Amino acid sequence: MPCQSSDELKKLVKEARTVTKHGQVADYIPALGKVNAHDLSIAINYPDGRCISAGDIERKISLQSISKVISLALVLMDRNKEYVFERVGMEPTGDPFNSVAKLESMTPSKPLNPMINAGALAVTHMIKGNSVDERFQRLLTFIRELAGNDTIQYNKEIARSEFETAHLNRALCYFLKQHRIIDEDVEQLIDLYTKQCAIEMNCLDLSRIGVVFALDGGDPQTGKQIMPANIARICKTFMVTCGMYNASGEFAIKIGIPAKSGVSGGIMGAVPGKFGIGIFGPALDDKGNSIAGIKLLELLSKNYQLSMF
Amino acid sequence: MPCQSSDELKKLVKEARTVTKHGQVADYIPALGKVNAHDLSIAINYPDGRCISAGDIERKISLQSISKVISLALVLMDRNKEYVFERVGMEPTGDPFNSVAKLESMTPSKPLNPMINAGALAVTHMIKGNSVDERFQRLLTFIRELAGNDTIQYNKEIARSEFETAHLNRALCYFLKQHRIIDEDVEQLIDLYTKQCAIEMNCLDLSRIGVVFALDGGDPQTGKQIMPANIARICKTFMVTCGMYNASGEFAIKIGIPAKSGVSGGIMGAVPGKFGIGIFGPALDDKGNSIAGIKLLELLSKNYQLSMF
Amino acid sequence: MPCQSSDELKKLVKEARTVTKHGQVADYIPALGKVNAHDLSIAINYPDGRCISAGDIERKISLQSISKVISLALVLMDRNKEYVFERVGMEPTGDPFNSVAKLESMTPSKPLNPMINAGALAVTHMIKGNSVDERFQRLLTFIRELAGNDTIQYNKEIARSEFETAHLNRALCYFLKQHRIIDEDVEQLIDLYTKQCAIEMNCLDLSRIGVVFALDGGDPQTGKQIMPANIARICKTFMVTCGMYNASGEFAIKIGIPAKSGVSGGIMGAVPGKFGIGIFGPALDDKGNSIAGIKLLELLSKNYQLSMF
Amino acid sequence: MPCQSSDELKKLVKEARTVTKHGQVADYIPALGKVNAHDLSIAINYPDGRCISAGDIERKISLQSISKVISLALVLMDRNKEYVFERVGMEPTGDPFNSVAKLESMTPSKPLNPMINAGALAVTHMIKGNSVDERFQRLLTFIRELAGNDTIQYNKEIARSEFETAHLNRALCYFLKQHRIIDEDVEQLIDLYTKQCAIEMNCLDLSRIGVVFALDGGDPQTGKQIMPANIARICKTFMVTCGMYNASGEFAIKIGIPAKSGVSGGIMGAVPGKFGIGIFGPALDDKGNSIAGIKLLELLSKNYQLSMF
Repeated sequence: MPCQSSDELKKLVKEARTVTKHGQVADYIPALGKVNAHDLSIAINYPDGRCISAGDIERKISLQSISKVISLALVLMDRNKEYVFERVGMEPTGDPFNSVAKLESMTPSKPLNPMINAGALAVTHMIKGNSVDERFQRLLTFIRELAGNDTIQYNKEIARSEFETAHLNRALCYFLKQHRIIDEDVEQLIDLYTKQCAIEMNCLDLSRIGVVFALDGGDPQTGKQIMPANIARICKTFMVTCGMYNASGEFAIKIGIPAKSGVSGGIMGAVPGKFGIGIFGPALDDKGNSIAGIKLLELLSKNYQLSMF
Repeated sequence: MPCQSSDELKKLVKEARTVTKHGQVADYIPALGKVNAHDLSIAINYPDGRCISAGDIERKISLQSISKVISLALVLMDRNKEYVFERVGMEPTGDPFNSVAKLESMTPSKPLNPMINAGALAVTHMIKGNSVDERFQRLLTFIRELAGNDTIQYNKEIARSEFETAHLNRALCYFLKQHRIIDEDVEQLIDLYTKQCAIEMNCLDLSRIGVVFALDGGDPQTGKQIMPANIARICKTFMVTCGMYNASGEFAIKIGIPAKSGVSGGIMGAVPGKFGIGIFGPALDDKGNSIAGIKLLELLSKNYQLSMF
Repeated sequence: MPCQSSDELKKLVKEARTVTKHGQVADYIPALGKVNAHDLSIAINYPDGRCISAGDIERKISLQSISKVISLALVLMDRNKEYVFERVGMEPTGDPFNSVAKLESMTPSKPLNPMINAGALAVTHMIKGNSVDERFQRLLTFIRELAGNDTIQYNKEIARSEFETAHLNRALCYFLKQHRIIDEDVEQLIDLYTKQCAIEMNCLDLSRIGVVFALDGGDPQTGKQIMPANIARICKTFMVTCGMYNASGEFAIKIGIPAKSGVSGGIMGAVPGKFGIGIFGPALDDKGNSIAGIKLLELLSKNYQLSMF
Repeated sequence: MPCQSSDELKKLVKEARTVTKHGQVADYIPALGKVNAHDLSIAINYPDGRCISAGDIERKISLQSISKVISLALVLMDRNKEYVFERVGMEPTGDPFNSVAKLESMTPSKPLNPMINAGALAVTHMIKGNSVDERFQRLLTFIRELAGNDTIQYNKEIARSEFETAHLNRALCYFLKQHRIIDEDVEQLIDLYTKQCAIEMNCLDLSRIGVVFALDGGDPQTGKQIMPANIARICKTFMVTCGMYNASGEFAIKIGIPAKSGVSGGIMGAVPGKFGIGIFGPALDDKGNSIAGIKLLELLSKNYQLSMF
């Protein structure tokens, strides 16, 4: 069943798109910069399989930080909760996503949460498998199942560019290694992590992953539990407390939807029990979130009373 | 209608009370230290007026940090949201509640959120009125209405002790004054703030305030909107993202109930649409939350599936 | 014996004055702003009583942070070294002079050194006497003896202005009080401290104080030991390691003279065994040091090989 | 001419050795731990070639952080001062030697000084040469000339152990790479840096290097200027302001001798114009300095009035 274009969504997209002029496209690697800053598209996926959309929802984007919440789900399935949360904390932080200062001042020196880079690297480190390839394939298989799309792949050019420039993430890894949070080869972990971040999909796929989280891990088609309900809930909680970088608190107050954003301009949202959302809007605000994507979610949340709070 | 003793709650209280031995009662002022570390009591207040309880729910406790969420509600009614959030942020922080370091490093230098001391002082500063007395009476009247109890007062001994020892809060105030977040006389603000923190009530009152938040600001008896729904929701959001000090993230994941704790050992909880909770358990964990109170909420949340997530 | 105008110094002053255009006069209180940004004057005082100068050396300036090194000397005479250095550290810091962050992160929470504001407040707190008046008079008498000038007074307007705006110093005081570094009334300490900072003198006086430090505490006229040699040496060491705010390291490398600067644009220098220097140049660089004063000292140090290193 | 055993030094060594029981030998790599915690030896080297000593001065130790001041001298000869100090600052810091927090908070993000690890890595990066081998040989040749000893080598076991465990230094390097302070391959730089730190010599050699610095770069035998005087002075200034880790300020006040310590328990001192000092005492205090070495220097400085201040 194809996703239906919605006039109402189109109207909201049009309104939200006006703020793109205040944002900026990430261009720390060339591949991310090759987009139209004024793009904005959205797909909404319902538990019954219905789908509505606006904008060019076929355009592929790399997951970037959105992948953090999915790798966390996989790792929580791979290991028990105690194991995972001994190595990464549960607390939001007022520091930037790539900060190392807190790592230094906290005792023990574990990353504050899985949504900052240091925590996400510790999580990816815990993905089970005998090789980078095997671990990556396990993650990819999981993501394909969540999205209900077997063709999802990663973008080799983006992965390679990020691998080459990931100096800060390497610094975080060595810091984690020093504090015995990780023990694998850093280049290997960076290889796996940059591939994870480079996994590509379109808004439809994103919204379908969202609906699985909205359904506490259940597959909307088959009803199969793709991940245990309590893991889906843990992920949604992190999406609320730290899913939108340093603007998570404001997002919770103004919008109140569990959501995770990425520097590519994507946002994956999960309205509990109701539907999943996939958004692409590459112009970012100063916190690194899609500026028009946030505006669009604000309009949606107000018009349809979607806040959890 | 009196609150009914519940065997089921008694059983949970008994189980939760076993952890009090790992906690410690706050004793930075003598008045707080005069309690039995093993106390634990709870009242649950339903929208229909029913109430169930366990333990000595008549014992009075001072609100301390629980008052922060109530003064925020009042100030949001006194001023518009823009005014308030220009002076205090919306973001959770991984720093301790009394830290000044972030104030120094952030630009602009406004407190990260209204639940840390610096933010709460900025909020109390915004309570309207021509004198400390008038502002305090307005807050007290609001609290009495929330609790449905006209006899609520503040504890003069606690207020005086806290006033005398509030050096760190004075430091925060002068920092806020330097950065033009507040402009009133610091001694006056500390006077008002320590009275606010010293307001006393029992678990029943606390649970009744909780049910008002659970009902988005509506009075369970009269249906009157004590505060606008959107303000009640903002408060509940802060309770989720930063209501339990530096353990808010973990609390959201494990328990998932909007709640605010105080150093006196009180916790006020609001299960959206369902009921309000008042807990008193003075033994604190290392983050400053009632150790048995958290255990009790964990048992309740698991047994009755109360998590929002 | 009057101070002789020196053509050589005039030439250096002329050259150094060219950089005043890159500096800015402090104007956080009006009284400090009432100066000509392009002023630059210097007096050099020799042990044998000779004095050479350039510029308008009769102009009076308030000591501001220059007073920190003098109050330290007095307190080291009032108390034993152990007592003093239990309450204030000996280590330079890369943080700004008014930072509170380090106070928070250090254990124990004592100020890193007596040249940052927190440390200077702790030092002034230790001046002996039964009242603010008595303590201030003792400091003033000491300063008059160092300068060989009985007419030195403090500027009431500057003291009052600073008292009114000293919010950050009050914040530091309450922080110190919380950590039991000080125990007196904060308003009283701020009163004493702002008077100390407002003590006024001209470049001649400054250079005479410098020569006493250069002579390890000896009076150049009478030979009397105004302060013990080891205390004069401690003061000179702090002047080298932290006398020029966050530029102390660079100053030590480029110039190598023990010196202390103030936000009024004054610099007091002590070339060990050789002479004392008094400089006034109100245009400040971004670290808060007299921009032309530093340039002038750089020229002097290079031309006459004055570096200690 | 052999170094003469001195009864007076022996007495001081005996007195200083009593404090070794309060210290601890570094054992983060096994090779460092293989020493007697109670060892203490000293050699003093005079400009005229005389040498006095006490203790087993033939024992070899690795330079560790002592090498930082020598690589700085070489780099200042290789490049101009402006080039070097654009990449590494001149300011002491109250933070630990291996901290990354300041790197993050400073603008621009350059290391505060060449004596902390981040700064020393930036300095080693600037050693000229076409390969690690060539750069290392240039440094080794320079060190041999300073020590007047052609047999000096590096300890392969120590270099290898440090290379394997240098996670924190790798983290610092990637941070520096992110901020464009360095641009070479990190493993290559760590290879060079760990070899530099593993260069081995005895106290005699150390004291001979000290006398070269004491003589502003001149060879005591030949009079040849091994390094320009102004570079020797810059190095001595850094030794005073940040040569003894976080205890540099206290060391300057109590002892007042330019000195640089290493985690192996070595200290190299340079009393300007007078003599060089080499000390080995592997038991460290909590700041990482030789506990008995510092005691010994304190006794020497007091008995012979060696303080510069």
